[in-house]
Amino acid sequence: KMLKAVLCTVLFMGTLPSLAAVSQGHISVILLGATGDLAKKYLWQGLFQLYMDQVSSGHSFTFHGAALTALEPGQRLMFDVLKNLACPPDESPDRCAVLKDQFLKLSQYHQLKTAENYTLLNREIQTLLRQEGLKEAGRIFYFSVPPFAYTEIARHINSSCRPPPGAWLRVVLEKPFGHDLESAQQLAAELTSFFKEEEMYRVDHYLGKQAVAHILPFRDQNRQFLDPIWNRHHVERVEIVLKETVDAKGRTSFYEQYGVIRDVLQNHLTEALMFLTMELPDNVSRAEEVLQSKLQAFQSLRSLEKNSAVLGQYQAYASQVQEELQKARDYISTTPTFAGVLIHSDSLRWEGVPFLLTSGKALDERVGYVRVLFKNRAYCTQSETLRDAEHSQCKAKQIIFYIGHGALNTPAVLVSKNLFRPVMPEGSWREAVGQSNLRVFGQPLSDYYVYNPVKERDAYSVLISNIYHARKDFFITTENLLASWGFWTPLLDSISQQPLRLYPGGVENQHLLDFEMVSGEVVFTLAEPVELLNPHRLMPNDYKMIQTKFRQSPLVSAWSEELISQLASDMEKTAHKTVAQSGEFHLALSGGSSPVVLFQRLARHHYTFPWKHTHIWLVDERCVPLTDAESNFFSLHSHLLQNVRVPYFNVHPMPVHLNQRLCVEEDRGTELYAKEIMALVANSSFDLVLLGMGIDGHTASLFPYSENGLEGAQAVVLTESPVKPHQRMSLSLPLINKARQVFVLVLGKGKHAITTLLSRVGHQPRKWPISGVSPSSGQLVWYVDYEALLG
Amino acid sequence: KMLKAVLCTVLFMGTLPSLAAVSQGHISVILLGATGDLAKKYLWQGLFQLYMDQVSSGHSFTFHGAALTALEPGQRLMFDVLKNLACPPDESPDRCAVLKDQFLKLSQYHQLKTAENYTLLNREIQTLLRQEGLKEAGRIFYFSVPPFAYTEIARHINSSCRPPPGAWLRVVLEKPFGHDLESAQQLAAELTSFFKEEEMYRVDHYLGKQAVAHILPFRDQNRQFLDPIWNRHHVERVEIVLKETVDAKGRTSFYEQYGVIRDVLQNHLTEALMFLTMELPDNVSRAEEVLQSKLQAFQSLRSLEKNSAVLGQYQAYASQVQEELQKARDYISTTPTFAGVLIHSDSLRWEGVPFLLTSGKALDERVGYVRVLFKNRAYCTQSETLRDAEHSQCKAKQIIFYIGHGALNTPAVLVSKNLFRPVMPEGSWREAVGQSNLRVFGQPLSDYYVYNPVKERDAYSVLISNIYHARKDFFITTENLLASWGFWTPLLDSISQQPLRLYPGGVENQHLLDFEMVSGEVVFTLAEPVELLNPHRLMPNDYKMIQTKFRQSPLVSAWSEELISQLASDMEKTAHKTVAQSGEFHLALSGGSSPVVLFQRLARHHYTFPWKHTHIWLVDERCVPLTDAESNFFSLHSHLLQNVRVPYFNVHPMPVHLNQRLCVEEDRGTELYAKEIMALVANSSFDLVLLGMGIDGHTASLFPYSENGLEGAQAVVLTESPVKPHQRMSLSLPLINKARQVFVLVLGKGKHAITTLLSRVGHQPRKWPISGVSPSSGQLVWYVDYEALLG
Repeated sequence: KMLKAVLCTVLFMGTLPSLAAVSQGHISVILLGATGDLAKKYLWQGLFQLYMDQVSSGHSFTFHGAALTALEPGQRLMFDVLKNLACPPDESPDRCAVLKDQFLKLSQYHQLKTAENYTLLNREIQTLLRQEGLKEAGRIFYFSVPPFAYTEIARHINSSCRPPPGAWLRVVLEKPFGHDLESAQQLAAELTSFFKEEEMYRVDHYLGKQAVAHILPFRDQNRQFLDPIWNRHHVERVEIVLKETVDAKGRTSFYEQYGVIRDVLQNHLTEALMFLTMELPDNVSRAEEVLQSKLQAFQSLRSLEKNSAVLGQYQAYASQVQEELQKARDYISTTPTFAGVLIHSDSLRWEGVPFLLTSGKALDERVGYVRVLFKNRAYCTQSETLRDAEHSQCKAKQIIFYIGHGALNTPAVLVSKNLFRPVMPEGSWREAVGQSNLRVFGQPLSDYYVYNPVKERDAYSVLISNIYHARKDFFITTENLLASWGFWTPLLDSISQQPLRLYPGGVENQHLLDFEMVSGEVVFTLAEPVELLNPHRLMPNDYKMIQTKFRQSPLVSAWSEELISQLASDMEKTAHKTVAQSGEFHLALSGGSSPVVLFQRLARHHYTFPWKHTHIWLVDERCVPLTDAESNFFSLHSHLLQNVRVPYFNVHPMPVHLNQRLCVEEDRGTELYAKEIMALVANSSFDLVLLGMGIDGHTASLFPYSENGLEGAQAVVLTESPVKPHQRMSLSLPLINKARQVFVLVLGKGKHAITTLLSRVGHQPRKWPISGVSPSSGQLVWYVDYEALLG
Repeated sequence: KMLKAVLCTVLFMGTLPSLAAVSQGHISVILLGATGDLAKKYLWQGLFQLYMDQVSSGHSFTFHGAALTALEPGQRLMFDVLKNLACPPDESPDRCAVLKDQFLKLSQYHQLKTAENYTLLNREIQTLLRQEGLKEAGRIFYFSVPPFAYTEIARHINSSCRPPPGAWLRVVLEKPFGHDLESAQQLAAELTSFFKEEEMYRVDHYLGKQAVAHILPFRDQNRQFLDPIWNRHHVERVEIVLKETVDAKGRTSFYEQYGVIRDVLQNHLTEALMFLTMELPDNVSRAEEVLQSKLQAFQSLRSLEKNSAVLGQYQAYASQVQEELQKARDYISTTPTFAGVLIHSDSLRWEGVPFLLTSGKALDERVGYVRVLFKNRAYCTQSETLRDAEHSQCKAKQIIFYIGHGALNTPAVLVSKNLFRPVMPEGSWREAVGQSNLRVFGQPLSDYYVYNPVKERDAYSVLISNIYHARKDFFITTENLLASWGFWTPLLDSISQQPLRLYPGGVENQHLLDFEMVSGEVVFTLAEPVELLNPHRLMPNDYKMIQTKFRQSPLVSAWSEELISQLASDMEKTAHKTVAQSGEFHLALSGGSSPVVLFQRLARHHYTFPWKHTHIWLVDERCVPLTDAESNFFSLHSHLLQNVRVPYFNVHPMPVHLNQRLCVEEDRGTELYAKEIMALVANSSFDLVLLGMGIDGHTASLFPYSENGLEGAQAVVLTESPVKPHQRMSLSLPLINKARQVFVLVLGKGKHAITTLLSRVGHQPRKWPISGVSPSSGQLVWYVDYEALLG
C-alpha cells in the first residue's frame, strides 16, 4: 500500500517514472548498523542520494535500517538520523523536500539479532513485494558493523535472507579486512563459504574519492599525451600522500592494533598506487579487465624489506594508549603513527621509478594527494630573469590528483601547463578559472591547468551508486585484497620490532620526518635527536663486528644481516679493483640457500657493481635442467641475474644438460666447462670464488670421501651427493685453490657444530672437503655469522 | 751589462734574490706576434705578472718581442704596449713601478722574418748570456700568430734557435689547432717533426680560468663529500655553458670557417667536461697522471650522432657574411652560431647522466658556468609553507663552477648548503659574505656556500705561470687534442647540411633556442616557427599509410619511422595473442641493419611486450664469435636484449662457435640448433619469423643459388655469403615456411629495384630466395617503406 501510494504521488508530480519503467523491479537495501557513526555520517545520506538519482531509473526501492537495538528505541534513533538528511546544493529544494518525504516513507527499522529476525525480514520483504505486485530485482546488505560480527550476519543472510532466484544479492563490507595475510585469508575463506565472489563488495572509501576515482578515466582519456611519457623514462617519482592533523586520541583501542600501515597504506594508498601503475586495459569501463590488470600490477611490485620504510610515532601517543587502554606507565607501544615507504615496481614500464607512500597522524596539515613528477629533460637557453615563464619547459612538470583538504580544500586534478591541456569529461569536471596567489607543489597555481568536480560528491555516495551499478572495479575483490596483504605482510612482520622516531606533532615536526632514498632504501634525513623505545632490542650494532682469524685465515663475523651486507660490499670492492686492473671480473658462485640473501642484496643495493664487466660462473650444479626450480643456476637467475645487467655472453651456466640428457659422462660436459674456463679466465684462476659449507663439511659439490675433485688434475668433475638430486657437477678443489680470492659464507645455528669442529681440525680434505680449501697464492676469508660461530 | 745593472738595483733594494739564487739560470721569453691583439690585451701583461711573481725565484729573464715588422716601427709599436702595462691592484705601487721599469729594460724587439733573423736572435741571446756570465735555463717561444705561420716559424726555431744542451725549449701554441681530425693530425705531425711532445704547450685559455682550473683541486680536496655522490646514482645532469651577447660581426672571415662547435665546444667546453668526468688520480698535482686519466675519460664518451646536437644561427649572420666576405645575396651560410649538444659517457660512473654543452653568440647574456645538478632523493613531510627553508633536503642540490660574467660578474664556486660545506684552499679562495638578493640557478644566493678567488687573475697570466712551472696538465697534449677532434669530427661531418634554427638575437630569442632530451637525442622544444632551409624534405605525414597487397600477401607501407612503429605494434599484438593461447611465444629474428631501429623501438616503447614468455631465436648468424661486433646476436643483444627482461633460458643464439672454432661442419652446430628448435618449438613451427631482404633477393642467410637451405629436409644450414664474413648459419627456407607468421621488413631507396622486380616475378627461390618465402599454413605480411616501394 505504502509503495503504491508513493508511486501515485510521484506520478502525479509528473517527474517520476512510468509504471512500465517500474517493471525493472524492486531493490531492497538493508543497512546493518543503521544507527552507528558511519551510517549517521555518510551512509544514509548516500542512500538518499542514490534514491534521488535513481528514482526515475525504473527500479523501486525500500530501505531497511537494522541494528541489535530493540524495535522502538532503534526506530527512534534511526529516524532522528533520517530527519537530518540534507538536500544537496544542486537539487531544487522543492523536489528534494518531496523526495525526502518519500524516502522516509520507504524506510523502516528492523531489529536484526536472532536467526528469527532475519527470517522475519525476508518474509516481510516478500510479503510487501507480493502485495505491491512487484518483481524483486535484488537486495543490498550493507555491513556497517565491526568485522567480528561479519560471520554471524553472513550466515544468517545466506541461510534465511537470500533473494529468490533471478534476483541478485550484493553484500557490502567495510574494512578492516583482516590484520595480515593470514587473518585476511581466514576471513575471506569464511565469507566465501556464504557468498559468491560476485556478491561481495568490499569498500575502500578511497576508491569513491572523486580525484582517486578519476585516475583511470584520466589515463584513458589522455592516452594520446600520456602514452609516450607514462613510464620510467619520463617519470621521476610518484608521491602518494595522506597527511592528517588529528591524532589517534579516543581511538587507540582500534589504532594500537593496526597502526598507520594497516590503517591507510595497505588499503587506500595502495589502491591509488595500483591505478597509477597498472597497464591500462583497452576498455576501462569493463570492470573485469580493470580488476585483472590491477592484479597483474600487484605481481610486479618488488617485495618490501625492513628498510623500505621509515616509521614514527607522535609523542603523546604513548600516554594516550596508557590512559585509554589502562596500561602501565612503562608500557611501550610499537605502533607507528607515521610511515614513509618506498615502493618499486619491476615492470618494464616502472622499473627504477620510486613510489613514495606517506601517511601520518599529528602532522602539520590535513591533505591527500597523488603526485606524479616528471623528469626535467629541457635546457632553457634564456636566463631565468629574462624568460617568458608561462609555458617554459624548464619548469617542473607534474600531474596531481588532489584528493582534498590542504591548500586547495577541494578535490582537483592539476596538470602543469608545460605538459599538455588534458581532456576532461565536461559533465563532471570543469576548469577552475579566476586567479589565486596560491603556490602548490613548488609552483604558483597559475602554472597548472586546474579542474574541479562540477558537483563535489562524498565518497560514500559515489560508492553506493557504484554498488547499484554493479561496478565491481570500484571495490576490493578477494584476490586484490589478498594480493595487497601478501605485499604488505612481510614488511609488517619485519618492522614489528623496528625503532620508531618520536615526533612532537603539528608544525613542530619541522624536518624531523623528512626522509630520503639511499640505494633502494629510505632513511630519515636528520639523525635521531633522542633515543627512544626498544631498550631491550639487541641490535647488531650492540656487538662489534668481529674481525679475527679462523683456521689461520681472516674471519669476519656478525649477525647474519650485517654479515651479508659486509660480504656484498667486500665483493663489490674486489670487483672494482679487479676490473680496474684487468678489465674483467670472474666470479664463481655457489648454489644452496645461504647465497640467496646475498644475491638479493647484490641486486638491490649494489648499483655500482661492475656487472657489465663481470663474468658469472657456477661453483657447482645439480644435474637437472637449468629451468628446473632445483637448479642452482635457476635460483641464481631468479634472485640475481634477472635484476642486474650482466651481458648474456658473460653468463656461464654449467653444461649439465647436453644432448637432451643430464650429466652423462660421454657428453663431456665437465671438459666443456673446463675448456670454457681455460679460454676465458686467465690461468684458470678465478678472481673470486664464493663457497658455502655443509653440516658434513662438504663445500661446492665436493662431498666427504668423494672419488672425484678432491685432488688430481681435473678442473671440473661429476660427483655424487648423499642427498637428492644425487648427481652433481662441481669445480674441483685444485681449481678452487687456484683462485685469487675465496670467500666462504657460513650462516645459522645448524652450522655451529661443524664450524666448531673445523676450528680444531687440520687439512683433511677427504674427511671434510672444506678443510682442503687453501688457495695456493690467493686469499681465503671466512664470513661466519654469530649463530654459526657462537651457537 | 744591462742585466747586471738590473740585478744590482734589485739587490740594492734588498727585496730580490741573492746571486746564489740567480745561479738557477736564465730564461729567455720570445713572444712572436708581439704587437698583435692578443699580445696587447693579455700576453705582455701576463709576462709582466710572471716577472713580478718570479723575480725572486732565482731565475733571471729577458723578454723578446718579435714580429714581421721592421725593427724601428716594431720597437715603437711594442713599447707603446709595454708603457701601458698595469700594476695589479694587490701590488704595492712603489714596488710595481720599480719592477715595471726593470721589465722594460729587460724587453727588446726583434724582427723575425727570415732564417737569418732567427740565427741572429739565437746569437744575441748567447752573446748576452756569455757577457753576463749566466747559465741558460731555457727558452719560451710564444706563438701569438695565425696557425698558417706555425710551420715556418717552427722550422726556424728548430734549426737555428734551440737553446744549448741542458737548457729546455717550450713553444706555446694558440688555437685553432686544425679544423677537424685530419687537419689536426696533419698539423700535429708537422709540429712533431720540429718539437718533442714535452716541448709543446698548446693553450686552451679556458684551462687558465680560475673556476675551471679549480675543478680538479675541488674534487680532490672534497673527496670525502664527493666520493659517494659523484656518480650516475646521484647526479641528475651536468650543464657546461658559455653564452655570449656579442655576435660574429667583423670576424666572419674566421667564423664562417669554424662555427660555434669548433670555436668553443670542441676545446673549451670539452676540457671542462673532461675535468668533471675523468677519474680522479691519486695525486692531482702529477701532470702525467692527470693527462692519462683525462685521455681515458675521452675513451668512455659515447660517439655523437646527427641528433646529438641542435643548431642555430642568428638572423643577422647571413647579411654580415654577405657583406664582409662579398658573397651574393642568395648565399646561404650553414655555419652554426648556436649549438646545444647532449653527451653521454659510458663509464660505469656516468652511464646515463646527460651532459649538456651549450654555447652561442647573440644570446641574452654573457655568462659561463659548469653546473652539476644532483637528484632530489628526499621527501619532505612538512608542507612547503611551513618548512624551515635553510637546509631542507627538498631543495635543489647543485655545485656550480661559475667561470665569470653573468649575474655574479666574478669567478665563483657555489655549493648548495644542503649538500656540504666544501673544503677550499684558504690562500686562493675565500667565502663570500654579506647578503645579496640575487637568485642564481633557481635559488637565492643565500642557499649556497659561495667562494670567490682571493685575487682575480686573468687566464693568460695563470697559463704563463703554468708554462714557467712546466705544468703540462694545464695544456692540451697532442693525444688529448686528437682525442677531442676524434670525438667531434663525426658530428661536424654529419651536421654540415643540417638545418639551422634562425634566431633574432638577444632577449628576443625567448624560448626559441630551448631544447630537450628525447630518447638520447636533443630537439628544440618549440616547433620551427618559420620554415627555412631544406624545403625539399618530404615529411611522413604527407602520405597516408598504404595497406594493400604485394605478391598476393598483405602489404603495409609507410615512411620508415611510421612503418617500424606499426611493425613493432603488430609484433606485440601477435605476441600477446600467442602467449594467451599457448603460454609462450617463439620469435625468430634476423640480423642486418634494418631491424636495429625495430629493436630499439621494441625496447623503448613496448613495456607490455610479454618478454618473460618470449623465446628469442636467430634467423641467421655470421660465423664470428657472439661477442664480435659483426655478430647478429651481438647487435640483437645490444639493441634489444640488454634492455628488456627475456629470461636467460629463453635466449637461443645460434651455435656458430663450438669447440673454440667457428662453423666447422663436424661440430654439428646446425644439428644442435635444429634439435633445440625441435625440443622447444611445437612442430618446429615458429610463432613469428622476421625476415629482411637483400638487394640480390637473399633473405635470412640464404643467398641466390645457395647449395643449402633452399630446399630439402635440413632445418638449419651452413651457407656462403658473397660478402664478408662469408660463412653463415641460417634457418632453411622449408623451416621458415613452417612458421605461423612471417613478416618481411624492407627499408630504403637501395631496395627499390629489387622490390620492383619482386613485384613481377613468380616463385623462383634459386634465383631470388626471398621469392620462396611462402608459409605453408601460416601468414606472410610485407612491411615495405615508401622509399623501397616507390623509389
